[in-house]
Amino acid sequence: MPYADSAGTAARWATARAIEAWAIVGGDLPEATLAAVRPGLDLARFDGARIVLVQPDERRCRSDEIAVADMIAVGHLDGAPAGLFEALVEAGLDDVRKLGVLGASPEVLAAAARAGAGAIVGLAPRDPDVRRALVRAQPDTIVEPGEFGALDARQYASRRAHRERVLLNPGPAVVTDRIHRAVGGPDLCHREPEYGALFDRVRRKLLATAGVTDDWGVVLLAGSGTAAMEAMTGAFVAPGRRLLVCRNGTYGDRIATIAARLGIETVDVRAPDTIPIDVAQVDATLGSDPAIDAVAVVHHETTTGLLNPVHEIAAAATAHHALTLVDAISSLGAEELRLAGGGIDVVAGTSNKCLHGLPGVAFLLVSPRARERAGQVPPRSLYFDVPNYLRGQARGSVPFTPAIPAIYGLEAALDELADEGVAVRRRQYRERIGVLDEELARLGLEPSVAPDHRSASVRSIPLPPGVSYAWLHDALREDGYVIYAGLGEAAQSSFRVCALGALDADVLRGFGASLEHALARSGAGPAPIPAG
Amino acid sequence: MPYADSAGTAARWATARAIEAWAIVGGDLPEATLAAVRPGLDLARFDGARIVLVQPDERRCRSDEIAVADMIAVGHLDGAPAGLFEALVEAGLDDVRKLGVLGASPEVLAAAARAGAGAIVGLAPRDPDVRRALVRAQPDTIVEPGEFGALDARQYASRRAHRERVLLNPGPAVVTDRIHRAVGGPDLCHREPEYGALFDRVRRKLLATAGVTDDWGVVLLAGSGTAAMEAMTGAFVAPGRRLLVCRNGTYGDRIATIAARLGIETVDVRAPDTIPIDVAQVDATLGSDPAIDAVAVVHHETTTGLLNPVHEIAAAATAHHALTLVDAISSLGAEELRLAGGGIDVVAGTSNKCLHGLPGVAFLLVSPRARERAGQVPPRSLYFDVPNYLRGQARGSVPFTPAIPAIYGLEAALDELADEGVAVRRRQYRERIGVLDEELARLGLEPSVAPDHRSASVRSIPLPPGVSYAWLHDALREDGYVIYAGLGEAAQSSFRVCALGALDADVLRGFGASLEHALARSGAGPAPIPAG
Repeated sequence: MPYADSAGTAARWATARAIEAWAIVGGDLPEATLAAVRPGLDLARFDGARIVLVQPDERRCRSDEIAVADMIAVGHLDGAPAGLFEALVEAGLDDVRKLGVLGASPEVLAAAARAGAGAIVGLAPRDPDVRRALVRAQPDTIVEPGEFGALDARQYASRRAHRERVLLNPGPAVVTDRIHRAVGGPDLCHREPEYGALFDRVRRKLLATAGVTDDWGVVLLAGSGTAAMEAMTGAFVAPGRRLLVCRNGTYGDRIATIAARLGIETVDVRAPDTIPIDVAQVDATLGSDPAIDAVAVVHHETTTGLLNPVHEIAAAATAHHALTLVDAISSLGAEELRLAGGGIDVVAGTSNKCLHGLPGVAFLLVSPRARERAGQVPPRSLYFDVPNYLRGQARGSVPFTPAIPAIYGLEAALDELADEGVAVRRRQYRERIGVLDEELARLGLEPSVAPDHRSASVRSIPLPPGVSYAWLHDALREDGYVIYAGLGEAAQSSFRVCALGALDADVLRGFGASLEHALARSGAGPAPIPAG
Repeated sequence: MPYADSAGTAARWATARAIEAWAIVGGDLPEATLAAVRPGLDLARFDGARIVLVQPDERRCRSDEIAVADMIAVGHLDGAPAGLFEALVEAGLDDVRKLGVLGASPEVLAAAARAGAGAIVGLAPRDPDVRRALVRAQPDTIVEPGEFGALDARQYASRRAHRERVLLNPGPAVVTDRIHRAVGGPDLCHREPEYGALFDRVRRKLLATAGVTDDWGVVLLAGSGTAAMEAMTGAFVAPGRRLLVCRNGTYGDRIATIAARLGIETVDVRAPDTIPIDVAQVDATLGSDPAIDAVAVVHHETTTGLLNPVHEIAAAATAHHALTLVDAISSLGAEELRLAGGGIDVVAGTSNKCLHGLPGVAFLLVSPRARERAGQVPPRSLYFDVPNYLRGQARGSVPFTPAIPAIYGLEAALDELADEGVAVRRRQYRERIGVLDEELARLGLEPSVAPDHRSASVRSIPLPPGVSYAWLHDALREDGYVIYAGLGEAAQSSFRVCALGALDADVLRGFGASLEHALARSGAGPAPIPAG
């Protein structure tokens, strides 16, 4: 996928076919197969696809082959798959990822893979004995010839549901092809030295991104951000001691729920969903309760797009000899988070938000002080046994099978972030959310959090009177934009727009226009400005 | 990756370059850049790579460009990237995935992506301002020109450590390109209908693979197989009640450890690592302890490659009104597991073993009876709250961000399995392990488990006298084969060979030859037979 760079890209993503030309190869499909696949090809053509027949010698084409094809490309598939490249050119395409190949023989499917075709579809009856040879050629899918039309409609056509969209939800985000390509890396045994080397590179890159020294521990967990929250919540509070939980949104509440499930007693410091946690209240609570081992706080409450004062909270906790555990799942990469010497001891993060990786791997960064503390706490879980991960890693070992493809993606994402520059990434987030704020202001929409406390990626916005979330969501989705439901206190009366991932500011102008038109159609917004 | 089909493939994987030709484009690399990259190109050439210069007009090549190139391909990159296809042909390659492109401009990098090139490397100084334009072209990596030699050595050269190998560890396995291609699918918000559709397809395909009806629940967890074990262990035993744990290996022990961490009291039925659990003992224990809510048993103990009699254990448990929880992580897909009406209530599985998917997603299959029971047990975790997953799914919702790329991979793997046929897959496992057993017998190596109780994928073998695991592992790895350490009671005195994934029987003959030569070199084996 390209960057979501503009309204034009959003529109193309919302409407374009994934495969713009289907190639078949002369002599490959028996007459009965071709007859059965032809209605599907006709539907694809009606949807804008071109059908190219590849044939070493134009004069030898069968009449039924000529009848289904829009054009003939002359070329071979053996050796270099030149015929498929000719098909690309003949179809007027400039990108082999837009070319699909339909084949009934392993030779054609293998040539499609060698040519880099964007879709490789085997045609065969359901019989495993017949399919075996095609399976070994490793096509993307195998269907009966008569099923091809349905397959094209579902996966490759202009109206397919499962497609690229401008994701304005709070992660997973739109990420670049650099990441998509990386996750397809080599199969690996995680007890081999190459996994140790991969882990060590990712560990060092995460620490560099977070700006801390090499003595911090890194735990990579196969799981979502909530897995990292549960690992963090369970690992640093001794039995009979307490966890202070800062609660001003769904994710603070989630920490409290996790603690309750794990039998950890908590003390709450609360604020409304749109108001930052009061540091003085944290300080006073710590002062009055010497049984508190740690303070847990969500840096960026994506419930409303609110930033909590984590550095000040960490200073208060440090003064009271408590650890500070920060959920930085939706802040790391986008917000300023000072870890070096800042009193923050543990950070929970995930790959698929502002780091622009893919879901499947989450992590903890653990200060030397916190690591020591964790070693004194009896583990409450095996899967989330943090000291076990840290001990293993010191020996180059890993307790459980890691999510290797997601780790490949995380490394590529951290490399991309380093290429962009960590400070530049943060500045881009600020600039981009500024454009979103301008668009919202233009439409008279005011985020629920006051400007001083807003994050650089998420806005929670009251729904205009008479507009339901479901209606608005569907209207924007038609234009290629995915928004997200409200959460927390204003769940039913708000929606969220989140600017994270490989999105440019311009695409948010396109989103603003789409939102404007939707609101106008709903009768709730200002009159639409005619598109220029 | 192709199937690991033979010793020849293993040897090629162990020795071949990933990128066989590097293309540069006339006029793209400034003279200073080309001068800095030249030592790296020379090293790649020394390692067997060809360097191709792509130029629209041969007469306009710069002399420094001609000096670094082995050959010149005449062709353009604008529009269809025909010049790169010409480079492929000129280099004598038949597979665009073996062609790498080095570029200093976004245009060249974008053309490389459009051509399907196997490696896309941007060359730029470290300055984010300079790199920005290249980042947006989404190359696989960006390096300084002087770093290219090290990059090539690490990722693309014949001696790179991180490469395809014949994985004979108990998962992750070698999987086909069908799976590798699938994980790179579109970015997705998991609250959108397309995720609901994806989940529902995977749910139905998992149930079909397991041979149970649609009223079973499916929990997809972002995590490893151990995550599924922890979810299963924690969800079905009420407070104050007990779990009977069958223990004859590391994974049975792991269930007991998880239960202890979660505060669940257990009753053990033990057997030595190489002996199946005694059903009569399970029955007697159940009869004498009415507080047992469930029996947990590992179907395939990969500790030694032992099968436990899960169907008989389930019958005993059912007679005593206890649930049966089966760890089928390394059996599902390869072993016969009768779930329909068989008394088994919960199955824990994972994507990356005998289902031939990639790591990152694990799952539980939950019978209607077990689902009802789970609803009566207070959750011991948030991340592993099984009823929460099941309730959410009934509404098309998912509690936490799913591991979408791994789920794409799992769906492709289940499709591949259906194309092969579930019964055929099981037969292939039996045939393939038969070849491994023949090879081991030929070398006088006897697996530690008696023939009747052996699984279809794993063998634990005593190390011959005087042979250390580390030495044997490294010797076989040189030939491209990855074995696995022993575990459990015989951890220090055994090694394991596991035949799962996209491996053909023939590659195990190659492994046998490699093992034979290694043992001969060690002085422990029979005299080597000269290679034919």
